Amino acid sequence: MKNVYIYDTTLRDGTQGEGISFSSEDKLKVAKKLDSLGVAYIEGGWPGSNPKDLEFFKQASKASFKNAKLTAFGSTRRAFCSPADDSNLNFLIESGAKAIAIFGKTWDFQVIEALRTTLEENLKMIEDSVAYLKSNSLEVIFDAEHFFDGYKANPEYAIEALKAAERGGADCLALCDTNGGSLPHEIEDIVAKVKQALTTPIGIHAHNDGELAVANSIAAVRAGATQVQGTMNGFGERCGNANLCSIIPNLQLKSDYNCIGDNIKYLTEASRYISEIANVVHHSNQPFVGRSAFTHKGGMHVSAILKNAKTYEHIEPETVGNQRRVLMSELAGQSNVLFKAKELGLDVSKEHPETKTIINEIKELEHQGYQFEAAEASFELLLRKAFSEVKEIIALDSFKLIIEKRGDQKVTSDAIVKLKINGSGTTSITADDGNGPVNALDNALRKTLEDIYPTLKDVYLTDYKVRVIDEKDGTAAKIRVLIESSDGETNWSTVGVSENIIDASWQALTDSYRYALLGKEDEAIIDNTQLERKGILNH
Amino acid sequence: MKNVYIYDTTLRDGTQGEGISFSSEDKLKVAKKLDSLGVAYIEGGWPGSNPKDLEFFKQASKASFKNAKLTAFGSTRRAFCSPADDSNLNFLIESGAKAIAIFGKTWDFQVIEALRTTLEENLKMIEDSVAYLKSNSLEVIFDAEHFFDGYKANPEYAIEALKAAERGGADCLALCDTNGGSLPHEIEDIVAKVKQALTTPIGIHAHNDGELAVANSIAAVRAGATQVQGTMNGFGERCGNANLCSIIPNLQLKSDYNCIGDNIKYLTEASRYISEIANVVHHSNQPFVGRSAFTHKGGMHVSAILKNAKTYEHIEPETVGNQRRVLMSELAGQSNVLFKAKELGLDVSKEHPETKTIINEIKELEHQGYQFEAAEASFELLLRKAFSEVKEIIALDSFKLIIEKRGDQKVTSDAIVKLKINGSGTTSITADDGNGPVNALDNALRKTLEDIYPTLKDVYLTDYKVRVIDEKDGTAAKIRVLIESSDGETNWSTVGVSENIIDASWQALTDSYRYALLGKEDEAIIDNTQLERKGILNH
Repeated sequence: MKNVYIYDTTLRDGTQGEGISFSSEDKLKVAKKLDSLGVAYIEGGWPGSNPKDLEFFKQASKASFKNAKLTAFGSTRRAFCSPADDSNLNFLIESGAKAIAIFGKTWDFQVIEALRTTLEENLKMIEDSVAYLKSNSLEVIFDAEHFFDGYKANPEYAIEALKAAERGGADCLALCDTNGGSLPHEIEDIVAKVKQALTTPIGIHAHNDGELAVANSIAAVRAGATQVQGTMNGFGERCGNANLCSIIPNLQLKSDYNCIGDNIKYLTEASRYISEIANVVHHSNQPFVGRSAFTHKGGMHVSAILKNAKTYEHIEPETVGNQRRVLMSELAGQSNVLFKAKELGLDVSKEHPETKTIINEIKELEHQGYQFEAAEASFELLLRKAFSEVKEIIALDSFKLIIEKRGDQKVTSDAIVKLKINGSGTTSITADDGNGPVNALDNALRKTLEDIYPTLKDVYLTDYKVRVIDEKDGTAAKIRVLIESSDGETNWSTVGVSENIIDASWQALTDSYRYALLGKEDEAIIDNTQLERKGILNH
Repeated sequence: MKNVYIYDTTLRDGTQGEGISFSSEDKLKVAKKLDSLGVAYIEGGWPGSNPKDLEFFKQASKASFKNAKLTAFGSTRRAFCSPADDSNLNFLIESGAKAIAIFGKTWDFQVIEALRTTLEENLKMIEDSVAYLKSNSLEVIFDAEHFFDGYKANPEYAIEALKAAERGGADCLALCDTNGGSLPHEIEDIVAKVKQALTTPIGIHAHNDGELAVANSIAAVRAGATQVQGTMNGFGERCGNANLCSIIPNLQLKSDYNCIGDNIKYLTEASRYISEIANVVHHSNQPFVGRSAFTHKGGMHVSAILKNAKTYEHIEPETVGNQRRVLMSELAGQSNVLFKAKELGLDVSKEHPETKTIINEIKELEHQGYQFEAAEASFELLLRKAFSEVKEIIALDSFKLIIEKRGDQKVTSDAIVKLKINGSGTTSITADDGNGPVNALDNALRKTLEDIYPTLKDVYLTDYKVRVIDEKDGTAAKIRVLIESSDGETNWSTVGVSENIIDASWQALTDSYRYALLGKEDEAIIDNTQLERKGILNH
């Protein structure tokens, strides 16, 4: 098995996609996930281009990666200057990245039209920019922008440009189909010719404008490329970059190339996690990793599948961490629930009467738009409630919110929360304001909760995500809220769904506190004099 | 230029996709659109399988198609019976379709496992089913199910099965990659071998399980296939069928094959129309026909595009009826703003003093988290305001919202909106409730707005998106809301950003109405007696 090195550019070229943007903290989370998936390179951004990328490299260069080399992206030096005087190149060196990718022009038309310099100067820019980075002991990848279009227009000059990078000492020449319009047989043919003319390892960087980026990447590998650049889920400008989630299994499961070894079984999880962080929909029909990729609908197919799965499946879904779904069948759901319940140590079996009830309840909730894949704490609460394992000391069920805007003044949010203390017959009413309605609710809620459970002071919300589920109905659509919380040691996620965003947030928020209190029911400090205090609005 | 015959199966195999279903009336609309696009075959359904398909054929066989042959789908006869006694085959004959596609088994494993008959009987089933349909003066396409998997397992038997269809008189042998797992070089190789063994024209039917269906279809055509089966937008089971919207332009604009001639300029419209009828989202990053397929975001790309479009476009968007878009984003600079302003007919230039002001304002807003790439209407309002082109008759600046939850009851949302009518000195106060807070605000707002501008009754919200921008601050994070609106003819998008989700929604909502009123400022009907009316909460 030959090795192919996976070069992930989700965090750089992927963010050129419409609607894709990551905070520098998001970028770190994605980088860690990619590293654990086993990619060889993580291109984190262009440190010279904006402060967010600079901040990311400052943090990421301190992190330790098991598999991946942190890589920074930039361009060859400006025309007619020394590389040592080029601030962009120096930003790359200072970024702390172990490998650097710089792009340069290889299409004569582009040198003249876009770069507005001479063909000779462009070759010098390539050679001495690469050499300068190499003299700083960095691994250097030369991204040959527009290479295939350039080769078709002027093969001699395109090869000259690669030779300039080779003379500079480049470790890899990544051939870019920047406009994404090449066909697989053209790619295979041109890569083979490049292999004959040069000795440096070759990479491929494809775009999906012809819906051929996966095929083009595979064609390049067949012709001898050993590095494949792409993004998770094919994120990227216009029609996206080459989709690593499809390239990796095609190479590794169907051809004789190793990309990420045994980690391929985490591919589906990584793909969905990264969509979640980017807060974009994970397309259900995405090959290999999509929710529908191994879903069977037609009645005839389903009975064939039950006889023998390979009649309608090209690979076993588990190989890439995905699973088979059979629509209108209970088999998939039930086994998941049983599996999870067993993990929690709950005494469930198919015969147990609660099992059927809870499976039906989960189905109904999923039908309403709840999703428990990213909200395991809410799922655990549901299971434990079904088996009567949750005692509620405080009924978290009443609030009033007043949100007001007057002229050009800042919008105010004030919340009143009314909590009944079960057993004691008392009620606690507290109020607070906040930056927004959910923050106001949270602040008011905590006034009581922290009195009764002082350990809740360590609990804080780390993440708040909102997704409109059915976007067709305008402002009356259903909304799903995911909240992530932490007590500094563990993290947990909860979910709420409603037509009303405040209600959905309240569900997720109160579930988070319910989860934090699991097993701590007996720690409650109930002091009636305290509870008699009534909060009023601060203003 | 060689001809390739496009065989559309959107109405049959496409409907196996999750969430895709057409009424028989929808099917007729789609068929007419496909015919005007110039496809050669429209596979309308399986008349033997359900009454909806039977009904469709009854109507469609009366319709006159300019370009396409109406085609019915079915299977070879059952084992050990005469074709004349097979009700399925007779349904096909009675359907009124001009061409018939019947599928049969070509993989020995499938004959034994799924069909549970002998290898010899299967060959007879293929031959005499085809012959029976031919004797009824029909054009017959034999769909060789699982052909590529079958060929890999037992090439002799797979070829035998095709020869049986050829003996029966089939007009075309369509080779199916039913499980969608083949690679392009395998397809090209196997199709070439089939071409050597048989004389009947060859077709290709690919599925997208490896994200390779477009490449596989092209590979088959390069090896000699003359019919390509696929669906519009790649609709279909699991990961979809081969996407005709990508195959057609790849063959016709980049290779030497004619598919639909000059009608290719209607491709984008047909693609979007069919998504609309199917009531599914048209993916913006879809190659060739997607809204983002020729969209430019990065500042450097944009300045290059302004110099010469072919630097970042593989084809001219107009060729397929699509268009270029330039997005506003933090990555873009001055050149984007100037480009957009010119499009709006505003008199801007780098020297104009307002130009610098507005660019700084946009930068500041983007820094705060606004994103104008998906909110072109808000962007246009900003530009027009900077050039004093917006007159505001109504000041949309005050509201009060009360959201309440009591015990297990449904959360209620009530809004009071106070609007000042500029110039008249009057104030309108209205109130309404809603499914959620934003819906309540919208309802209350419209009570006044529609009185003054009756044409706003036609305006409705079509989409509402919420994204948390910086998620690490929990519920105090900033929130961006995108709203899409329509008046039935045009659509527009607006944006709002705030720590307060209600405030962000209010900004996007009021921007939407401001945009709807652009140029209509003089249509206001201001009736003071009406405005004196004060709305109160309904409950």
